Amino acid sequence: MAIQRNKITVVGAGFTGATTALMLAQKELGDVVLLDIPQLENPTKGKALDMLEASPVQGFDANIVGTSNYDETSGSDIVIITAGIARKPGMSRDDLVNTNAGIVKSVCENIKRTSPQSIVIILSNPVDAMTYVAYQTLGFPKNRVIGQSGVLDTARYCTFIAQELNVSVEDVRGFVLGGHGDDMVPLVRYSNVGGIPIEKLIPADRIEAIVKRTRTGGGEIVNLLGNGSAYYAPAASIVQMTEAILKDKKRVLPSIALLQGEYGYDNLFMGVPTLLGGDGIEKVFELELLPEEKAALDKSAESVRNVIKVVTG
Amino acid sequence: MAIQRNKITVVGAGFTGATTALMLAQKELGDVVLLDIPQLENPTKGKALDMLEASPVQGFDANIVGTSNYDETSGSDIVIITAGIARKPGMSRDDLVNTNAGIVKSVCENIKRTSPQSIVIILSNPVDAMTYVAYQTLGFPKNRVIGQSGVLDTARYCTFIAQELNVSVEDVRGFVLGGHGDDMVPLVRYSNVGGIPIEKLIPADRIEAIVKRTRTGGGEIVNLLGNGSAYYAPAASIVQMTEAILKDKKRVLPSIALLQGEYGYDNLFMGVPTLLGGDGIEKVFELELLPEEKAALDKSAESVRNVIKVVTG
Amino acid sequence: MAIQRNKITVVGAGFTGATTALMLAQKELGDVVLLDIPQLENPTKGKALDMLEASPVQGFDANIVGTSNYDETSGSDIVIITAGIARKPGMSRDDLVNTNAGIVKSVCENIKRTSPQSIVIILSNPVDAMTYVAYQTLGFPKNRVIGQSGVLDTARYCTFIAQELNVSVEDVRGFVLGGHGDDMVPLVRYSNVGGIPIEKLIPADRIEAIVKRTRTGGGEIVNLLGNGSAYYAPAASIVQMTEAILKDKKRVLPSIALLQGEYGYDNLFMGVPTLLGGDGIEKVFELELLPEEKAALDKSAESVRNVIKVVTG
Amino acid sequence: MAIQRNKITVVGAGFTGATTALMLAQKELGDVVLLDIPQLENPTKGKALDMLEASPVQGFDANIVGTSNYDETSGSDIVIITAGIARKPGMSRDDLVNTNAGIVKSVCENIKRTSPQSIVIILSNPVDAMTYVAYQTLGFPKNRVIGQSGVLDTARYCTFIAQELNVSVEDVRGFVLGGHGDDMVPLVRYSNVGGIPIEKLIPADRIEAIVKRTRTGGGEIVNLLGNGSAYYAPAASIVQMTEAILKDKKRVLPSIALLQGEYGYDNLFMGVPTLLGGDGIEKVFELELLPEEKAALDKSAESVRNVIKVVTG
Repeated sequence: MAIQRNKITVVGAGFTGATTALMLAQKELGDVVLLDIPQLENPTKGKALDMLEASPVQGFDANIVGTSNYDETSGSDIVIITAGIARKPGMSRDDLVNTNAGIVKSVCENIKRTSPQSIVIILSNPVDAMTYVAYQTLGFPKNRVIGQSGVLDTARYCTFIAQELNVSVEDVRGFVLGGHGDDMVPLVRYSNVGGIPIEKLIPADRIEAIVKRTRTGGGEIVNLLGNGSAYYAPAASIVQMTEAILKDKKRVLPSIALLQGEYGYDNLFMGVPTLLGGDGIEKVFELELLPEEKAALDKSAESVRNVIKVVTG
Repeated sequence: MAIQRNKITVVGAGFTGATTALMLAQKELGDVVLLDIPQLENPTKGKALDMLEASPVQGFDANIVGTSNYDETSGSDIVIITAGIARKPGMSRDDLVNTNAGIVKSVCENIKRTSPQSIVIILSNPVDAMTYVAYQTLGFPKNRVIGQSGVLDTARYCTFIAQELNVSVEDVRGFVLGGHGDDMVPLVRYSNVGGIPIEKLIPADRIEAIVKRTRTGGGEIVNLLGNGSAYYAPAASIVQMTEAILKDKKRVLPSIALLQGEYGYDNLFMGVPTLLGGDGIEKVFELELLPEEKAALDKSAESVRNVIKVVTG
Repeated sequence: MAIQRNKITVVGAGFTGATTALMLAQKELGDVVLLDIPQLENPTKGKALDMLEASPVQGFDANIVGTSNYDETSGSDIVIITAGIARKPGMSRDDLVNTNAGIVKSVCENIKRTSPQSIVIILSNPVDAMTYVAYQTLGFPKNRVIGQSGVLDTARYCTFIAQELNVSVEDVRGFVLGGHGDDMVPLVRYSNVGGIPIEKLIPADRIEAIVKRTRTGGGEIVNLLGNGSAYYAPAASIVQMTEAILKDKKRVLPSIALLQGEYGYDNLFMGVPTLLGGDGIEKVFELELLPEEKAALDKSAESVRNVIKVVTG
Repeated sequence: MAIQRNKITVVGAGFTGATTALMLAQKELGDVVLLDIPQLENPTKGKALDMLEASPVQGFDANIVGTSNYDETSGSDIVIITAGIARKPGMSRDDLVNTNAGIVKSVCENIKRTSPQSIVIILSNPVDAMTYVAYQTLGFPKNRVIGQSGVLDTARYCTFIAQELNVSVEDVRGFVLGGHGDDMVPLVRYSNVGGIPIEKLIPADRIEAIVKRTRTGGGEIVNLLGNGSAYYAPAASIVQMTEAILKDKKRVLPSIALLQGEYGYDNLFMGVPTLLGGDGIEKVFELELLPEEKAALDKSAESVRNVIKVVTG
């Protein structure tokens, strides 16, 4: 009958997974199991221990365990999947998709067995398609299978707006619809700073530049790093979604959700505004779109479908 | 040359002033001097000590001092004025205005002497007029004399929207223009939940009810309490403004600012969207208003002017 | 199966109860029901609403409800009892004890019915005796009936030590044993600053003065306020205990626990070092005491017993 | 005259430096300049941008800039030096020391020029010797040249104690004296859990194991990671020291300080309990040591001196 901590599993102990684990623990959202493949078990344990050793300094109480054994993830409330490889030189896009689909499928088979009541958040790329793969494999109701892309894309979009105007990031609000790729649709019309539409504050050409930069925001980091991709903002994004669920906050955040008629799409996983609470995705908000916005979203949906086709053959 | 803490004075150790002092200290925004009249020196010291005794539990380092001696406020970075009496039975509105104007004037004469470089935030009621009195007395540049009303009015408005939709308060964004009274102008058109305009989410009659409740939000609390007025949300509001300034956050928040032509008003203190940073009010944002919005704002401005007339005779 | 927020009831909406409710909500520890008697239902609702209206500013999601109806507290995880009257002029100590015993008994009969699985924390004074009354009335296992005094007394003790040395409160550690009264036993030998025993840092006569001031710390605030008693530090103390339980933090904090042989006392509720976690009091730590420490604790135990005798007749 | 943010430079954008930059920004301690060598300018910019893009999600306002140009660090309040190479296979210890001494010297020559009023915290290894090198190069007063090791070593020690007893890390307090190496001296006698000496709670052989594990805590992580060393707990440790200084918290934390007679050592940089505030190291606490403790500290001092000899030739 005792009150117990939540249990959160993070699959994939790369930079994103590890940073996610740390941020979850810092917020005392629950005990964290960080899992990677057996060959990486020791580094995974090392990262977990290093984080734990930060806890007396930062004053958080959370067990953080590194493992390669799915049994240790048993009974998780939330499972976050960051596993997957990055595209290597000479690798075709289809090869990447198929490789990561295999990884996500394998992870989900394990999760289905060990944490059948969990809510699963997917970050593995290409994330729209991987969320679909996870959904197919897990067999969970759709509210419990959620992809992350819009929180991150929106964060980048808001960062650029805040920089443009030299205002606090706390007052910038926007959101990004559609697939996680160059076709994503930052919704300019609904973006605002302290409630003031950005179209009243920023010239059109600068907004256009910000939208363009947002669409290639992931690539910008990849190009700068030279070796690897972003992990700080992605981890923060997952943690925000996880917190919304574990605290039943009813947050209105963009998620990759299974659309069954919403926005005119059927059986498609794509980024839309959702209500995140204790049940996972509790609602999809349908916005009226202008014709050009709908056209852009259609284009993005088509891109997502093309990737999913690779997986489904 | 050593790094030093900020110094913040809170004038008026009633519920609002005391709660403000506590919240400032909890956020480690600086050392706090809580000041009230000599007859209340002991209770003021008692409240300050009680707060200080919470610090080992909550882990904040801030001196909190209760006093009636303005010398102890010397060199404050920020001065918050909450002093003033509440309207008593049988008292005319004009008597209230004149009494509080006298109090604010006396406080400001002291502050001018002890903290000539400070930024001053006024909460004493009627706040638009009292901000004018403070400005006249202090002789500070207009960016350093700021009234609080819009953050609080907006907070109430957002609370009611969040309740209506059962969504997180973190995702509700709106703002309220105009004077702090029944004529205030919640800007419905620019209010949103996670970027989605509330007009897409809430029926018109319910929005109307929310706007009406917001306008009388202060009175709602007064009626419930039976004896006294709100202090938790007011204190939180002042603290948000103070934090914006002390951390130079460049927040976009509604403040009572001296208008010199903006929105077509001259030499009037009234609530408008502002940029709050290390210089105090660094900018007033001018929004294009619809005719009916401008008419409502004119009405609110007229109310403010009528109160100021009481003071200026 | 959805993840749900914790539910916390605070009985007594005076300054301590209300401040407690706010701090619980600010930390997003759960939804809060603030309850007081029917005659105070409106002010209780007013305080709850005022707090709620602070939530968009401070960014916390928590329902806060004011009520006088115990049905609304149903299924609480934690119940905090702050109800009780203060001693009035001309009132004998025994009258006070009996009046508050009646109040606590009545509250607990309701709680037993509406929240039979809850963990109950008592702050009503005289708190050692009231914890006994609650235990008798509730019929809950001893780990689920906890009195607060030591966290507060220790906080005061640590505040005075930090002031004496001009060091951060984060680095002062001490604890206070025994009943909540002038006989309490601050354990000087085990008090330290950053691990350094205070006896190495502070002269004996100054330590003696600090101990004396700690013992009368509640009275110091009462005398300063002139009308009422401390509530900021008491509220912070209860919230720390509540957080320890709801997050299953396994904190080592002084609590009023039922002693059944520990320290040589039988069937006595008194302040001792405990382990607070998801099960409430999970352990009582028994310290070896020096003869003079044990003598002081015996004296304190005797005081507690004398008060309990008033209740048990 | 406007209130401005603090400016903090982190030299070295490896895992520790980058994690430090993020944690500083998350706490809004100031604007952060992350600097590395010109060859790593792009990855440094990439990490800084990735962090910045987390800010709208986490709600912190801080500029984070990546650069290789010391001019951008100009006027920093705090400079944190994490630069240096790790020991490579076949490299002698002396070669490592000399290489890192050259790096630290070069960094400090730049800092002396661009931020002559700054307080400098060194983490580069071997840290006791590198703090000496920094002090020699900077020519700053001793209070403004501080090495980090004891906060980290203590954090590990406290982690192991908390695990041993299954208690909250918030309640474990200990500290570690001496050089940052296998000879460090965890002061068992002064270590406690909620004020209770660990010697009363943990059997001697288990304490011995914990001390041993603490001494080799850095190596434990290195061995697990296989490629690289700890960075989460080291970053948290630097941030705690930085916060103590920037908020003038007067914390009692172990730092590597220049000893001039304290503990019987002259002109030696070594880990001792210090008071950290707005002036940097404001005080060194001298503890009475038992003969065996003093012997252990002498041994540690000897190790530090031997490393410094490598540098001074």
